[in-house]
Amino acid sequence: MAGNSFGQLFRITTFGESHGEAIGVIIDGCPSQLPVDLDYIQAELHKRKPGQSKITTQRKESDTVRILSGVFEGKTTGTPIMMLIPNEDQRSKDYSHNTNVFRPSHADYTYQTKYGIRDHRGGGRSSARETAARVAAGALAKLLLKSQGIEIVAHVSSVGKINAPNVEIKSAQEFIADREKNIVRCADPATAEEMIAFIDSVRKDGDTVGGKVSCHILNCPVGLGEPVFDKLHADLGKAMLSINAVHGFEFGSGFEGSEMRGSEHNDIFITSDTGVRTITNYSGGIQGGISNGMPIDFKVAFKPVATIMHNQATVDAQGNAAEISGKGRHDPCVVPRAVPIVEAMAALVLADHWLRNRNTILPQ
Amino acid sequence: MAGNSFGQLFRITTFGESHGEAIGVIIDGCPSQLPVDLDYIQAELHKRKPGQSKITTQRKESDTVRILSGVFEGKTTGTPIMMLIPNEDQRSKDYSHNTNVFRPSHADYTYQTKYGIRDHRGGGRSSARETAARVAAGALAKLLLKSQGIEIVAHVSSVGKINAPNVEIKSAQEFIADREKNIVRCADPATAEEMIAFIDSVRKDGDTVGGKVSCHILNCPVGLGEPVFDKLHADLGKAMLSINAVHGFEFGSGFEGSEMRGSEHNDIFITSDTGVRTITNYSGGIQGGISNGMPIDFKVAFKPVATIMHNQATVDAQGNAAEISGKGRHDPCVVPRAVPIVEAMAALVLADHWLRNRNTILPQ
Amino acid sequence: MAGNSFGQLFRITTFGESHGEAIGVIIDGCPSQLPVDLDYIQAELHKRKPGQSKITTQRKESDTVRILSGVFEGKTTGTPIMMLIPNEDQRSKDYSHNTNVFRPSHADYTYQTKYGIRDHRGGGRSSARETAARVAAGALAKLLLKSQGIEIVAHVSSVGKINAPNVEIKSAQEFIADREKNIVRCADPATAEEMIAFIDSVRKDGDTVGGKVSCHILNCPVGLGEPVFDKLHADLGKAMLSINAVHGFEFGSGFEGSEMRGSEHNDIFITSDTGVRTITNYSGGIQGGISNGMPIDFKVAFKPVATIMHNQATVDAQGNAAEISGKGRHDPCVVPRAVPIVEAMAALVLADHWLRNRNTILPQ
Amino acid sequence: MAGNSFGQLFRITTFGESHGEAIGVIIDGCPSQLPVDLDYIQAELHKRKPGQSKITTQRKESDTVRILSGVFEGKTTGTPIMMLIPNEDQRSKDYSHNTNVFRPSHADYTYQTKYGIRDHRGGGRSSARETAARVAAGALAKLLLKSQGIEIVAHVSSVGKINAPNVEIKSAQEFIADREKNIVRCADPATAEEMIAFIDSVRKDGDTVGGKVSCHILNCPVGLGEPVFDKLHADLGKAMLSINAVHGFEFGSGFEGSEMRGSEHNDIFITSDTGVRTITNYSGGIQGGISNGMPIDFKVAFKPVATIMHNQATVDAQGNAAEISGKGRHDPCVVPRAVPIVEAMAALVLADHWLRNRNTILPQ
Repeated sequence: MAGNSFGQLFRITTFGESHGEAIGVIIDGCPSQLPVDLDYIQAELHKRKPGQSKITTQRKESDTVRILSGVFEGKTTGTPIMMLIPNEDQRSKDYSHNTNVFRPSHADYTYQTKYGIRDHRGGGRSSARETAARVAAGALAKLLLKSQGIEIVAHVSSVGKINAPNVEIKSAQEFIADREKNIVRCADPATAEEMIAFIDSVRKDGDTVGGKVSCHILNCPVGLGEPVFDKLHADLGKAMLSINAVHGFEFGSGFEGSEMRGSEHNDIFITSDTGVRTITNYSGGIQGGISNGMPIDFKVAFKPVATIMHNQATVDAQGNAAEISGKGRHDPCVVPRAVPIVEAMAALVLADHWLRNRNTILPQ
Repeated sequence: MAGNSFGQLFRITTFGESHGEAIGVIIDGCPSQLPVDLDYIQAELHKRKPGQSKITTQRKESDTVRILSGVFEGKTTGTPIMMLIPNEDQRSKDYSHNTNVFRPSHADYTYQTKYGIRDHRGGGRSSARETAARVAAGALAKLLLKSQGIEIVAHVSSVGKINAPNVEIKSAQEFIADREKNIVRCADPATAEEMIAFIDSVRKDGDTVGGKVSCHILNCPVGLGEPVFDKLHADLGKAMLSINAVHGFEFGSGFEGSEMRGSEHNDIFITSDTGVRTITNYSGGIQGGISNGMPIDFKVAFKPVATIMHNQATVDAQGNAAEISGKGRHDPCVVPRAVPIVEAMAALVLADHWLRNRNTILPQ
Repeated sequence: MAGNSFGQLFRITTFGESHGEAIGVIIDGCPSQLPVDLDYIQAELHKRKPGQSKITTQRKESDTVRILSGVFEGKTTGTPIMMLIPNEDQRSKDYSHNTNVFRPSHADYTYQTKYGIRDHRGGGRSSARETAARVAAGALAKLLLKSQGIEIVAHVSSVGKINAPNVEIKSAQEFIADREKNIVRCADPATAEEMIAFIDSVRKDGDTVGGKVSCHILNCPVGLGEPVFDKLHADLGKAMLSINAVHGFEFGSGFEGSEMRGSEHNDIFITSDTGVRTITNYSGGIQGGISNGMPIDFKVAFKPVATIMHNQATVDAQGNAAEISGKGRHDPCVVPRAVPIVEAMAALVLADHWLRNRNTILPQ
Repeated sequence: MAGNSFGQLFRITTFGESHGEAIGVIIDGCPSQLPVDLDYIQAELHKRKPGQSKITTQRKESDTVRILSGVFEGKTTGTPIMMLIPNEDQRSKDYSHNTNVFRPSHADYTYQTKYGIRDHRGGGRSSARETAARVAAGALAKLLLKSQGIEIVAHVSSVGKINAPNVEIKSAQEFIADREKNIVRCADPATAEEMIAFIDSVRKDGDTVGGKVSCHILNCPVGLGEPVFDKLHADLGKAMLSINAVHGFEFGSGFEGSEMRGSEHNDIFITSDTGVRTITNYSGGIQGGISNGMPIDFKVAFKPVATIMHNQATVDAQGNAAEISGKGRHDPCVVPRAVPIVEAMAALVLADHWLRNRNTILPQ
């Protein structure tokens, strides 16, 4: 119950600290006979890794993943899949000045109080470095979903107060290709330029800024999601809120939907060539907690990263006033690197619910 | 894995359909020796029950709860606590016209497709009637938390585009007393009047409107929440998103926080009479997924109820175009009755994490 | 984690005390569209109920089960199934003399110490009355398994030192018919007579005696059971050991197998008309924790019931020496009524693993 | 739900195949601030490792364990603890003759049928090599229990038909010291010699033989175990039955108890210097599924190892008759190496239930 596992049937357990020897993940419950494309998994990790561009942290990690079990002759065997990612650029001395003080809006104070002990180096277990393990596991979940035709795509839809317009998604491939053309991972090129310039100016200020990631799940069959507590959007929401720095989640009409009337908001059913669908999609592809065959849409809000290059007042472990200096590496805006994390967590939720849904109706 | 249980150590499992014989809940994991105040539990249920006022549905249910096990001589015994709430006003004939058509933005279509069978009467299992079981269980969780000094209070902070100002909370008791002075359950009296008039006009239109509930957890000790997946706010988010009609969740600075800079958003630690606290509370009382001793604040967005008194186009089970007529009972705005549900789900999360946190440090 | 649930995908949660208002069970995860034969479920309960014959306890309970949710027009809907069994013959005054003393080899002392409070009436939650809920849920699991051709049959294979010879099983129906011809539920008529006479003499002594139940699972497909911890026999073992009064479990060659050599014990594979099978079945139908298509055989040892009609020395809640008098009702030998419980628990394990195994191989 | 995790609050997940790169385990839920004695953990592994003596398999593995996370400055931090054990002596060519045939009484046939694919090298995931990960995790559980005064000791109580007399346990240390004086791990020296000679003769025959391990848990407080399904002995039983080659489990009076009368079998309570205890201990230290403060006693039956040095008939993957030749390494009797595995699994169960029991009574 210590909270390091996620999922029921497609279940992952992650381990590792920012400056320990390695981080990694065990995936238990992946069906057998899934071909494992290690290059794809590695490419997903590269989208998350630090040091990709001038607008992300300069920590250097190759994030090279090794699979130690559960794959034989290129396919899953149904046994647990262990993925190991060694830590390389640990530079613990960067953090030695933080041993005894609590960094504002970090987890230092809560970890220290909860456990009575903490690995202070780079935030230890509370570091977003742990999300590399999620991306590796999520990449396998994506391979499972792709084998069933389901695609997951996300992009940066806002940075600070800069918002991208809605982008029509012709295909997952095209959307991703467009998004990867710029370092901020926004599928709208004009907005991307604006975002990059803004992040760069924030970086020069030694400051950070928040943003939002929008995610779309395409070709999801009807029926995924388990009422009443494990509604599909409830599990997606938990998944997203478990990502470092996330402060909000909405799907379909979201917060704006709370201002609407039922007569506007109801999605009218029609019959199309491809079966029953709805004219509008304020439901965000989910009704009663169960996917309805329409695209699943949700949005995730990230607060600004807490590590800034300014000096800040704080307290130390004895409760005395202290100051924390703004040195070390910093990530001016986390959302470009959060895109693969959002996709990975969505994939883990979908793979889990896809498996769970297979047992719903008794074979006659 | 069928999704009808919630919580790990303080774990509930609910059952029942809108028009079946009864609904109810088993609570497993409640510690022994907790005095059970049945009047309090019943009073909580009364806040959720239908037919309270002109602005809620007119279905008549006394929602009388019976405890069938787990309590002996007024105290919990550590064994499972079964709470049963019989259904009284079932009026299934009201729903007979919906047997074969899918109501827009309800769960009829998704349930029918997922299960190949559904209890169509009043939405069956997908009805918000199920939340009565949650309120009963949540009331017990609240008694557990109260015994430790923790209080949970919520109110309606917006209806449609009408937003209440922030209300200072002097004490949980006062806040609840103020809120209960009006039928919309908004702690700000002037806004409450405006909301009530607006809901009444929407009701006369045969329409519905959404809204938001704000919730505050007071006197929560430091240390609740389990990194990395079971962060306190991630479990709160899942709990809220599992409530019928919820489309969004945010805590602390929420969606607005994504527009801020780190230098504004960081909550600076200081030492006060009562120990370490932060000057601002953009973190919403949770850092790194763990409560930090500050008030926990979050907001929940509800879409407008799907049942409206208008005729609507739809399709039937054979995929043919059909019309659904706007008769039966309807609830113009769900948020006044959602207040005790939000509190109940928050209490279930807190009780669970309070128990989970007790095992964190090895006794020396 | 309070231990009142069993199973992962076909999951039950039981509640209720011996002398409370009712006992019952929620079954979550039963697939939809299973026809529910309520007469069959009731008939299974009748095999377990007290007062069946002169060799069982004389407590009178009709054990009439009501299904309050999850079934619509005679079929499961995929939502939780709640089964309620009211307690009728509670006669709590029979137990008032036990309020303050600990009955030898009962759970009075351990419950009191663990929880600091207990419902002493009839043993409260520790009473075998709770197994009625298991039999009801297990009957539903049997209906699920029968729909897939899997049958589970058990009988009393020994009482005290009286052992039945191995009985060839021509069909599940015939075996059960033979077994039900006598009140001790032994499929060998001659042994049954001997057992009945022996139990009756023990009963007249005011004493009790233990025995064993043998169980056979027929037509189980290959592939049920999950390595490495959830081996099929490990989950069967846990299920059996969770039944009141069980002190031992063995499958296949069991304890005797530990005295054999590998060259005798190995089950040689051959190809038969019906596919691969083994010549011998020392493996008891399970290899590496997974069913191999052969009959699954196991045996369960029950200690003698602790309630005897003799006066016994003991201590009271204050630790003072006390005496407990041998009055009330008593069950001289529990194994005839344990047969349906063993079958029910086996059915719950099999239904769960049958569901779990459906996700093993990725659909190509 | 794929079965590679064990425990609820002290929860382990193992991974790895016999001839993959490594095996290992993640432990989640270990309280913080437990000093980690790596030498002790390594010493436990040495008791299980192959190649220890002439009566065990000659595979050479140093079984050197590395801890990659969750420990900081020699103490647990409350975060997941990852233990990695590389495979060294893989010699896969030894197994190449088994690619296409099913070894009798191994898991080849069931794995191949269940998963449609298997890592055939050395039995892959079904190999007892996986138990090294359990011993490593169990050693940490033992350290946790030792910090609370609880000790677990096991020894080989029979090999084939050779049975050791009951050995009085003066202290855990002495018992273990005696047991470790001989290579068969029997605490009775005379019986040990007989056992060793017998195993050696069996080995020379190219055959194998089964045996039993007896285990004792000392100083266990009253109150561990959760009714009704997670009875302490039910979880111990599952733990033992999950070990490779185990065919039976009994506790307290066990199978013999089923032949006794209640008047003999009941354990009479008395008050002693150290509180309430029972005169006899047919209950094996557990009543109603909950520890009663007396020593917990159980026995585990192991079948003879399936790999023998004889040629055996079998079938191949196409169902054709085949022969398997008796070459490679073999372990004539598994029980000496099973002793640390039995202790490890018992420790995992006890650590889990010790944590679970801490939440039982509400702090007043």
